[in-house]
Amino acid sequence: MKPQSRYDVRVPPSTRPGGRTAAVRDAVLRAAADLLIEDGLEGIELTAVAQRAGVGKSTVYRRWGSVPGLVADLLVDMADTSSPRPSTGALRTDLLAQAKLVRRTLADGRQGRLFKAIIAAATCDAVTANALADFYRNRIDEVSPVVVDAVARGEAPRGTDPAEVIRQLSAPLYYRFLTDTRPLTTADAERAVAVTVAAVDAGVFVKG
Amino acid sequence: MKPQSRYDVRVPPSTRPGGRTAAVRDAVLRAAADLLIEDGLEGIELTAVAQRAGVGKSTVYRRWGSVPGLVADLLVDMADTSSPRPSTGALRTDLLAQAKLVRRTLADGRQGRLFKAIIAAATCDAVTANALADFYRNRIDEVSPVVVDAVARGEAPRGTDPAEVIRQLSAPLYYRFLTDTRPLTTADAERAVAVTVAAVDAGVFVKG
Repeated sequence: MKPQSRYDVRVPPSTRPGGRTAAVRDAVLRAAADLLIEDGLEGIELTAVAQRAGVGKSTVYRRWGSVPGLVADLLVDMADTSSPRPSTGALRTDLLAQAKLVRRTLADGRQGRLFKAIIAAATCDAVTANALADFYRNRIDEVSPVVVDAVARGEAPRGTDPAEVIRQLSAPLYYRFLTDTRPLTTADAERAVAVTVAAVDAGVFVKG
Repeated sequence: MKPQSRYDVRVPPSTRPGGRTAAVRDAVLRAAADLLIEDGLEGIELTAVAQRAGVGKSTVYRRWGSVPGLVADLLVDMADTSSPRPSTGALRTDLLAQAKLVRRTLADGRQGRLFKAIIAAATCDAVTANALADFYRNRIDEVSPVVVDAVARGEAPRGTDPAEVIRQLSAPLYYRFLTDTRPLTTADAERAVAVTVAAVDAGVFVKG
C-alpha cells in the first residue's frame, strides 16, 4: 500500500524541497502530528513541538502563535498533500476508490489517531473547528469533479449537488469511526458507496 | 419544544424518585454533565464534580472511581432517559421523527456541547469509547423496531438490517456536527431520511 501523504511516513526534512523556511515548517508540522498521534490533544504544547522538531522555541511561537494556530496549519498541509480525486471513468468505481481511501486513512493506526485528535480538538476550540471545516471543504472540492463528470456522462441526474454526494459518502465511515469500537471494514466502504449511489439515482441530491 | 431528557433541564435532585442513593447519583451525574457542557473534557475532575453536586468527595471516588467511570455511568443514564422510538405508522415519517430528534439534540446548545465533550473524550480513552459505543448500540436497539415494523408492513425489503438503517440515518447528521461549522438544519434531517429511504428501497441494507 502506497503512502497517501507525508503523514504516513517519516522523511527527514532535509530531503524535502523548498528551502530553509519550508524545512522548518515541515519539521514542526511533523513534530506536531507525531505528538498528536502519540499523546493526543493533551500531549501537544508549543515548547514540546519545538524541541521535537529541533527548532528554536521562539521561531515556533512567532510563526504559529498557539496550538490551534499550529493545528490549523497542519490541516492546510494535510489538504495540500492529500490524494487527488479518483478517476476510474465511472461514478460507482470512483466513489468506491474514494470510500476505500477514507476507510484506509481512518483505519490506519497513525492517521486514524491524528484525525481523532484533531476532531477532538475541534470540539472545544473555534479556530481548530474552522480549520477542520476548511480542510473538509477543500477535500470535497478536490473530489467533487467525480460527480460533475458523472452528471456529464449521464450517470447522475442533472442538478445533483456534488458536495453533498461526497459528504454523504464519508458520513457513515466517520460516524462509525467516532462512535463505535468495531474497526472499519471494506464492507463498510462498499455499503457507503451503495447507499450513496442509491440516493443519487433517486435524485435525493438534486438541488431544489 | 418539550425537553427530551433530564439533560435538557435542571430539576433539584430532591424532587426525583428513588431514595437517597438515586438522589446522589442524580446530583453527581447532573454535575458531571454541567461541567462537561461548561468547560468540556478538561473541566471535569472528580473533586469538582463532588463539590458541585454537594456530595462527599469520598462517595464519588468510591462509587465511580475515575472520570471515565463517571462518564460511562452518565451515558448509561442518558440511554435510560432518552426518548422512546417514534411510532407514526409509516417508515418515512418514523425516520423523519427520529432524524429530527437527533438534529434537535445535536443543535441544542447544552446537549450538543455534552455530546461533543463525550465524543472527544472517547477519542482518547478506551473506557469512554466502549461506553459511547454501548450508548449508541442501546439507542439503535431502541429505535430499530421502526424498521422491523416497516418490513412487516411491506415498506422495506425482507432481510433489511434494522441497525444499519438507523446508523445510516444518524451518520450524516453526526458527520456534519463534528466536521462542519454550519448549524444543522431541518433540511439536513430531511435529506438524511431521503437518503436512507432510497437505500432501503434499493435493498442496500438486506443482509447477505
